[in-house]
Amino acid sequence: VLRVELLNIGTEIMMGFIVNRHAAWLGRQLNQMGAELVRQVAVADRPADIRDAILEALSRCEVLITTGGLGPTSDDLTRDLIAKTLNLPLHEDVDALKNIEERFRRRNLVMPLSARGQALVPEGVTIFQNAHGTAPGFAIPVTMEGAVCRWILVLPGPPRELHPMFENQAKPLLHEKMADCLSPIACRVLHLAGRRESDVADKFESDLSGLEGLEIGYCARPGDLDLRLIVRGESTQERVDLMNRAEARARKLFSTDIYGMDGESLESVVIHRLLEKKIHLATAESCTGGCLSNRLTAIPGCSEIYRGGWITYSNEMKSLQLGVDPHLIEVHGAVSEPVAKAMAEGALSRGNAGIAVSITGIAGPGGGSPEKPVGTVFIGLASKAGPTVVNRFHHAYERETFKFMASHSALNMIRMELL
Amino acid sequence: VLRVELLNIGTEIMMGFIVNRHAAWLGRQLNQMGAELVRQVAVADRPADIRDAILEALSRCEVLITTGGLGPTSDDLTRDLIAKTLNLPLHEDVDALKNIEERFRRRNLVMPLSARGQALVPEGVTIFQNAHGTAPGFAIPVTMEGAVCRWILVLPGPPRELHPMFENQAKPLLHEKMADCLSPIACRVLHLAGRRESDVADKFESDLSGLEGLEIGYCARPGDLDLRLIVRGESTQERVDLMNRAEARARKLFSTDIYGMDGESLESVVIHRLLEKKIHLATAESCTGGCLSNRLTAIPGCSEIYRGGWITYSNEMKSLQLGVDPHLIEVHGAVSEPVAKAMAEGALSRGNAGIAVSITGIAGPGGGSPEKPVGTVFIGLASKAGPTVVNRFHHAYERETFKFMASHSALNMIRMELL
Repeated sequence: VLRVELLNIGTEIMMGFIVNRHAAWLGRQLNQMGAELVRQVAVADRPADIRDAILEALSRCEVLITTGGLGPTSDDLTRDLIAKTLNLPLHEDVDALKNIEERFRRRNLVMPLSARGQALVPEGVTIFQNAHGTAPGFAIPVTMEGAVCRWILVLPGPPRELHPMFENQAKPLLHEKMADCLSPIACRVLHLAGRRESDVADKFESDLSGLEGLEIGYCARPGDLDLRLIVRGESTQERVDLMNRAEARARKLFSTDIYGMDGESLESVVIHRLLEKKIHLATAESCTGGCLSNRLTAIPGCSEIYRGGWITYSNEMKSLQLGVDPHLIEVHGAVSEPVAKAMAEGALSRGNAGIAVSITGIAGPGGGSPEKPVGTVFIGLASKAGPTVVNRFHHAYERETFKFMASHSALNMIRMELL
Repeated sequence: VLRVELLNIGTEIMMGFIVNRHAAWLGRQLNQMGAELVRQVAVADRPADIRDAILEALSRCEVLITTGGLGPTSDDLTRDLIAKTLNLPLHEDVDALKNIEERFRRRNLVMPLSARGQALVPEGVTIFQNAHGTAPGFAIPVTMEGAVCRWILVLPGPPRELHPMFENQAKPLLHEKMADCLSPIACRVLHLAGRRESDVADKFESDLSGLEGLEIGYCARPGDLDLRLIVRGESTQERVDLMNRAEARARKLFSTDIYGMDGESLESVVIHRLLEKKIHLATAESCTGGCLSNRLTAIPGCSEIYRGGWITYSNEMKSLQLGVDPHLIEVHGAVSEPVAKAMAEGALSRGNAGIAVSITGIAGPGGGSPEKPVGTVFIGLASKAGPTVVNRFHHAYERETFKFMASHSALNMIRMELL
């Protein structure tokens, strides 16, 4: 497998003013082409730290990718430091200079002297002209004695410059020059709802016969568990066969707890199933305060089947807007099975929907009791197709996660109803 | 200054399945306490890579922080590898085991055998019990020969476990044990709504007399601009004096455009002002689909003044639930000033509120026209205290940012109304 190291350069990353998304993006890109991001390093715009990081990488990986530090200002050091470290003289590239001049001309701006320095590149490199910014990137063939590294790809920091440059120029170069190192890989991520990491691991790993060579990984997120299946190997057929066997084993073990794969989210699965079945949805939320509706309306196309909803944060709203009998609230409390049922049924009829879901619970920190501790949630599901169901959950988390988990449980109940 | 290195462990990071937000979060935290994140490294769950990264860091920085790899499954290697690398035996911590057992009991789940391994910690460490998850973190005093590093802080990967553990346990430990290395710093971040970075920079930096030694930074986020004021220096009094002068200068220049400071959010400022004034709020959302109500209900205490709201995603819901005249929708369209006005007034009376806000707009990609392009939003504010106001905005962003920006504009209209 082609081992790649990524070096992100920028003080703004280290001070936490921006989130570094390059590692995730490049990690996925490399993965898909049969390379592997084995290490990612970030340092500030400080010469000694940048130089150290470059030298370390040269002895470790076949390809080093750097991002950032190619701009025109005093804190952009990457170009100079790489040239110095590899002992390569810099020269001005005619096409790069033309691109910079052209970009200023198009905006009717005078090109400042500092901008010209961006046209400097080390000698003997393959230049990546920048279609979305001023600074060109470049690929340096490494001939340094003792270096494992064969290529350094020097790329700009802004994502809208980096992404097309990697896809259109750096990636083809790697395919051409490093073909011997690229090892094909197959990867599938299964998303499970309502399962714990330890439980899934125990079950899945209790019998791995016939799955020799499968790499397994887990990632627990609130409400979800990702089961990651990876197969490496030369033969496409063997990779596909082993992956299919692994997926089939997982589906047999976890069945409908698997709600989706790869890029799918629980809300996107729910919306797409509602669209398929042409069923309209309405929501009635109390403690989640719009978390559920916010997630549903994040999915393009939802307006075709999402009628809308109510945030009935007060008892008055529950009665006046959803028709919940005030007597029910008095006797059972707002957080109760009968109230969840009445909320869901009110939303179903008033929203003129095929399915309606309701959420009422105790987010805390106050409001708990021995019978209904903080974290208690009742979720009702009313449907034109059958009787209303209410499930009770206990999500003892801080406020934000509580809201997410409760909305997650509601989404999962809708999903199960639509199976 | 205290030099800190961060090691993020997890194959899911390297494969790009999750974006690593730890570096940005910890970078900000460290910065504020007078330490500096000088290097951040990420590696997969692979023993040799983890061990190499630990050993390198030990020779380089005073404090190493690791995140991730503390879970119960076969790919969680951090605990074992750190213990082996430092030659420390592992033992089971009684309190950590109790916490794990308790978390399973509270959910009425049987604790699997694999979960128990999370209670293992190296000998001689300070344990950070995990209030939001199963695996404890810990701090290891490093006594290895030749190591620059004095402490390794081993923290869990999930943000909701990591953040409180760092703030409540790791940070105080650093303050106590590494006080000699922390360089005192005063930092204030002022949040401005509706201002551009270049505009704020030009105004603020046009006259810096009397503010010598002040470090200024800017961070533009959707809808907001952060103005960062940093003062370093030995004397507390001098730091406070200069900081106060700088803040006063900013407040004079930007006045009510500054909505808050440091940890305050626009929604928390709005909720607290409503609580102070004892005014009840209701919301009517169309295109934002609950984004506004979700943000409001994230603030503890909101239930005292937030009546609730409507997600009127369909025209039918706007008319039936908020009393918007169908004729208005027919003539002016659902995204229009008259409909925004009627929605706000409907929410005010039906929600029995003191203030009501409404949002109707075109999220896109479809639905735009020359007069009302994608990104157009009308926001209405109805109040018992005066006539209804409707403002028009243009937020041309992809779906998620559009919803955030539109809810941000609504929050800012409420804030200005309450000044």
